[in-house]
Amino acid sequence: MLNFASDYTEGCHPELLRRLCESNMEQLGGYGTDHYTASAAEKIRQEVGRPEAAVYFLSGGTQTNQVVIDSMTESYEGVISAATGHIAVHEAGAIEYSGHKVLTLPGREGKLSAAEVRRFIDAFYADGNYEHMVFPGMVYISQPTEYGTLYSRQELTALSEVCREKHVPLFLDGARLGYALESRETDVALRDIAALCDVFYIGGTKVGALSGEAVVFPKGNMPRHFLTLVKQHGALLAKGRLHGVQFDALFTDGLYFRIARNAIERAEELKAVLRELGFRFYLDSPTNQQFVIFPNEKLGRLGEQVLYGYMEAYDAEHTVIRFCTSWATTEEQIAALRRVLESL
Amino acid sequence: MLNFASDYTEGCHPELLRRLCESNMEQLGGYGTDHYTASAAEKIRQEVGRPEAAVYFLSGGTQTNQVVIDSMTESYEGVISAATGHIAVHEAGAIEYSGHKVLTLPGREGKLSAAEVRRFIDAFYADGNYEHMVFPGMVYISQPTEYGTLYSRQELTALSEVCREKHVPLFLDGARLGYALESRETDVALRDIAALCDVFYIGGTKVGALSGEAVVFPKGNMPRHFLTLVKQHGALLAKGRLHGVQFDALFTDGLYFRIARNAIERAEELKAVLRELGFRFYLDSPTNQQFVIFPNEKLGRLGEQVLYGYMEAYDAEHTVIRFCTSWATTEEQIAALRRVLESL
Amino acid sequence: MLNFASDYTEGCHPELLRRLCESNMEQLGGYGTDHYTASAAEKIRQEVGRPEAAVYFLSGGTQTNQVVIDSMTESYEGVISAATGHIAVHEAGAIEYSGHKVLTLPGREGKLSAAEVRRFIDAFYADGNYEHMVFPGMVYISQPTEYGTLYSRQELTALSEVCREKHVPLFLDGARLGYALESRETDVALRDIAALCDVFYIGGTKVGALSGEAVVFPKGNMPRHFLTLVKQHGALLAKGRLHGVQFDALFTDGLYFRIARNAIERAEELKAVLRELGFRFYLDSPTNQQFVIFPNEKLGRLGEQVLYGYMEAYDAEHTVIRFCTSWATTEEQIAALRRVLESL
Amino acid sequence: MLNFASDYTEGCHPELLRRLCESNMEQLGGYGTDHYTASAAEKIRQEVGRPEAAVYFLSGGTQTNQVVIDSMTESYEGVISAATGHIAVHEAGAIEYSGHKVLTLPGREGKLSAAEVRRFIDAFYADGNYEHMVFPGMVYISQPTEYGTLYSRQELTALSEVCREKHVPLFLDGARLGYALESRETDVALRDIAALCDVFYIGGTKVGALSGEAVVFPKGNMPRHFLTLVKQHGALLAKGRLHGVQFDALFTDGLYFRIARNAIERAEELKAVLRELGFRFYLDSPTNQQFVIFPNEKLGRLGEQVLYGYMEAYDAEHTVIRFCTSWATTEEQIAALRRVLESL
Repeated sequence: MLNFASDYTEGCHPELLRRLCESNMEQLGGYGTDHYTASAAEKIRQEVGRPEAAVYFLSGGTQTNQVVIDSMTESYEGVISAATGHIAVHEAGAIEYSGHKVLTLPGREGKLSAAEVRRFIDAFYADGNYEHMVFPGMVYISQPTEYGTLYSRQELTALSEVCREKHVPLFLDGARLGYALESRETDVALRDIAALCDVFYIGGTKVGALSGEAVVFPKGNMPRHFLTLVKQHGALLAKGRLHGVQFDALFTDGLYFRIARNAIERAEELKAVLRELGFRFYLDSPTNQQFVIFPNEKLGRLGEQVLYGYMEAYDAEHTVIRFCTSWATTEEQIAALRRVLESL
Repeated sequence: MLNFASDYTEGCHPELLRRLCESNMEQLGGYGTDHYTASAAEKIRQEVGRPEAAVYFLSGGTQTNQVVIDSMTESYEGVISAATGHIAVHEAGAIEYSGHKVLTLPGREGKLSAAEVRRFIDAFYADGNYEHMVFPGMVYISQPTEYGTLYSRQELTALSEVCREKHVPLFLDGARLGYALESRETDVALRDIAALCDVFYIGGTKVGALSGEAVVFPKGNMPRHFLTLVKQHGALLAKGRLHGVQFDALFTDGLYFRIARNAIERAEELKAVLRELGFRFYLDSPTNQQFVIFPNEKLGRLGEQVLYGYMEAYDAEHTVIRFCTSWATTEEQIAALRRVLESL
Repeated sequence: MLNFASDYTEGCHPELLRRLCESNMEQLGGYGTDHYTASAAEKIRQEVGRPEAAVYFLSGGTQTNQVVIDSMTESYEGVISAATGHIAVHEAGAIEYSGHKVLTLPGREGKLSAAEVRRFIDAFYADGNYEHMVFPGMVYISQPTEYGTLYSRQELTALSEVCREKHVPLFLDGARLGYALESRETDVALRDIAALCDVFYIGGTKVGALSGEAVVFPKGNMPRHFLTLVKQHGALLAKGRLHGVQFDALFTDGLYFRIARNAIERAEELKAVLRELGFRFYLDSPTNQQFVIFPNEKLGRLGEQVLYGYMEAYDAEHTVIRFCTSWATTEEQIAALRRVLESL
Repeated sequence: MLNFASDYTEGCHPELLRRLCESNMEQLGGYGTDHYTASAAEKIRQEVGRPEAAVYFLSGGTQTNQVVIDSMTESYEGVISAATGHIAVHEAGAIEYSGHKVLTLPGREGKLSAAEVRRFIDAFYADGNYEHMVFPGMVYISQPTEYGTLYSRQELTALSEVCREKHVPLFLDGARLGYALESRETDVALRDIAALCDVFYIGGTKVGALSGEAVVFPKGNMPRHFLTLVKQHGALLAKGRLHGVQFDALFTDGLYFRIARNAIERAEELKAVLRELGFRFYLDSPTNQQFVIFPNEKLGRLGEQVLYGYMEAYDAEHTVIRFCTSWATTEEQIAALRRVLESL
């Protein structure tokens, strides 16, 4: 069975496992006080070009979104998100559980525009009843988005400017950030993100780690007593080394980027195959998630040989499905998928 | 200055004040254990035709919505509402503060349709990822809606059927319920509401009381230890008599309905005036709130003589404004408003 | 039946009712924007001697404690309280519902000492694991306490000094504040409280009002967007006038103090009676709540003629019971209670 | 430097690492749907002797306590704990963050007695004001306790009986459960725990795993939609395999028990050394944590050669310190610690 269902089907990149094995018997302090965690943070600070950045490691995307949003907004504030944003749809209400409303705007192909954010905030303060409403307290975007699309540097800069003008922090969910950075169509580098966002995270779980997301506060603007807040959310690991060692490995010799690059190269091959075989794309994704408008009549046979992601019904005869590549996807797997697709 | 800004500009109906004065020196038990509260509850049980109903008195609409929704849904559940629903827009995130997501559907003129609720719930359970999403745990509607519109008995029955089929309670926000019941265009009586809804409230604050909303659990289906839950939300009054005496008065000799009838009669007069003078209505409201598409050029002069509610910009030259009538509105005030409107 | 069960058995002081009646038909803005609310706030500012104070009206004690504590502490902070504090025992977990731990210290006769607060905070920061614990973020005291006892000016000053030194706000719950201010044994005036506390409230519900507590931020140190926070907690009344009119009356011509003085005078008479008849006091209360170690054998006959408050079993033969006086207690009622007590 | 500071100073037991390496490239479903997780759950079901048990894997102790307590109690309920319980002291308020009060009882040497739990619950319902208080909704105990002590089977049975009689679930925090099960002084087996408790967890993080705690609902009494609740708390790992593989290894060929046995054997050696050298124990701990009343004058030199845990000041000349053993502690390390202690 071929498996293109997600980018987290394997364990972790072998190099991370090697480092976990090597360091295993070393006795270390708990809760992120170990030297691997310190080293990982330092490497990330250098990579993002911000010596003053604070870096913190959490376990997964939903947890990270909850802790970051809850700790950086006031009680009376909500978070602006595209209606398709992960926090708005697929986090089981984790943001509302922490007391904050997700203020959804339509967006386009998973992206918010600076103009719609500005319109929304302006309309909010123009409303005579705004004190009876949820204040816009943060802007949440994802790079790549849930649809694999990317913000350009210009778009990100425009969003950043609106946020600064309106005194609302800009939070970038980078659960799959590597794939954005290595996309052939991006002009946004890690340093741009650090310069333009108030907080973001570099996803590990979906980019080669067993678990772990590196939260970066680029201006050292970590909320006061952040460790306590993390603990209070049940998100503090006793063996912080688990993330420290993995991120130290990911940011040694550019491994994080090489991992992402493989996924992008395989995704480009997959796109070529799909295009050649005449399949229609739901939208143009320059990253590792490809969304295809698939004929229902062929879906049964596909499912017998390939695991894929179901997204939504497109029309009576078609379904939107997702193929993902990852650091672990091989040219052979793409070739095998091609043979299956040809045979349908 | 004429004041049509809202239906809560006066204190309370004089009869309520009279009863508060009469009973004032009586020594009574606290927290709703007094005989006025018991009598008010009993009168409401009779009025709704449900001897098994449980009736509880809270202070205001947002508080009532928060307590009812929070106590009748599980943690993993949210509440379905029209996008224009009060809980979705004008409650400062009180529902999210209690941990629950408001799941908004577009609705039409403030109303949800049974069909869109069904589609939403069906789509939810059809989604392979539904365990990662917020479960639909309640349906929230308001009668009249935030736009003054009404559900017909047929519409309410259809909603009720969907809710029962899907095992989701139906909650009716009756902050202005009196005006719905006395509308000339309604076919929905209080007993219909009690038969079709799982919980609803009979609004006092906006229908002649100083404060107070009567929550009705028509099948005696009050959540376990509801009083403790109310206390935990900070919503339990030591002098529960304040609401007991007022609701006992409101449900003696049909006062609640007479109060509402006056507002409706004045609203009908106002509609006739507006129609006659050629003003356009934003929508057709059969209750005490009237929404007018008002020419901006005349707004300044109107504002010098009349207090009205600002709703939203309509287009470059028009604004949607609201006029409210209440139990206290007089024919003279309508006539005076007419003179102002004519003079603009 | 004589009723000494509590100080909230009647409605409100007749003067408040008169003012509610007088102002009833006046059309006023909602949510506390009316001139009565403004006037009440101004009178309180003058009474506390703080032109810069911000004053806000809420409905009841538990609600006020929840809103104040939640809005003035960070997520990672809890509130220090005596183990007997109202928030620690009798608020159904309203503080925890808002996410904050109540950090209890033993106290003595309902009172915290500056020394024990200092010890606790010092020990907290001396603990190597304090980042894994709940930070002390506020000190909560009540004046009078739940046992009717009082902080002296010296004790309050000492607490205030510790709080300022440790950068922890001092919050005084004044649900029964009037009785403290009019006690014959106090040396603490309202202005002292305003000078020594960071936030406090002047209780209305238990001191002559139908409902209402006046929260005072003496240095104008109201949390940002406090109205929105109040709304989010379901605590904002549409008819804010209900509290505005009552507090305006309470702080006109010293009514608040006269109300309390009557309760104190009756309590002193009651104490004399109890002492004379040989009853033992549980502790020495200089305010309107008197705690008596009552022989169980006489409790049945007492209960046939007098409503009292049950506190706790004292020993096999005695029970601690509470008698309350209020603004409404008369000399005749005290005399009648004396006759009952003599007859037992 | 010798390190006896905790039982989580190394990574994981080499056998777990081996299994993580072996399974690494296998493509598996996410969120705990993989076959390792299923196999681990099945092995635990067999080990606890409960085919109907539901088993779920979370990441750490605080997270597990928060999710279990929040999902198994009603809003109006709190959780009874010894004052020294981990949830009461060292979880940064994670339980209160989820809205529940920790109801502390004094306990003795970290343990609650059935008698004090019964007294507390009886007193609660005997109090006329109980509806204004936090209901006892769960009993939380830890085995071993935070002081290394153990409940005997008789004590556990008595607690279980009280809980069943009072309809309050019994929750056992087994963060270090292995050390309890392998203690030479215990008569409580895993099956006893499954029979006597309503929910418990088998700790991984502190017993040889990188991370992970196995929550067991012995009667299949998992809360409805538990996975969604876990996700909502930010506690659901995309790569559930991380815990599945580790627990599958831990419960293969009795590895979990062997791991714990080594810690116990080393702890017994350590106790013998300490006793022989004349050190005083703070209490008699039959598990892997040893608490010693250490002379302050020797503490400096000890600290130069050994990492230990600081607990609290004992008196002016002594401090309570903690030595921990683990699966990784060797006889050589105990011998080395002996030499250090002798040399002080």
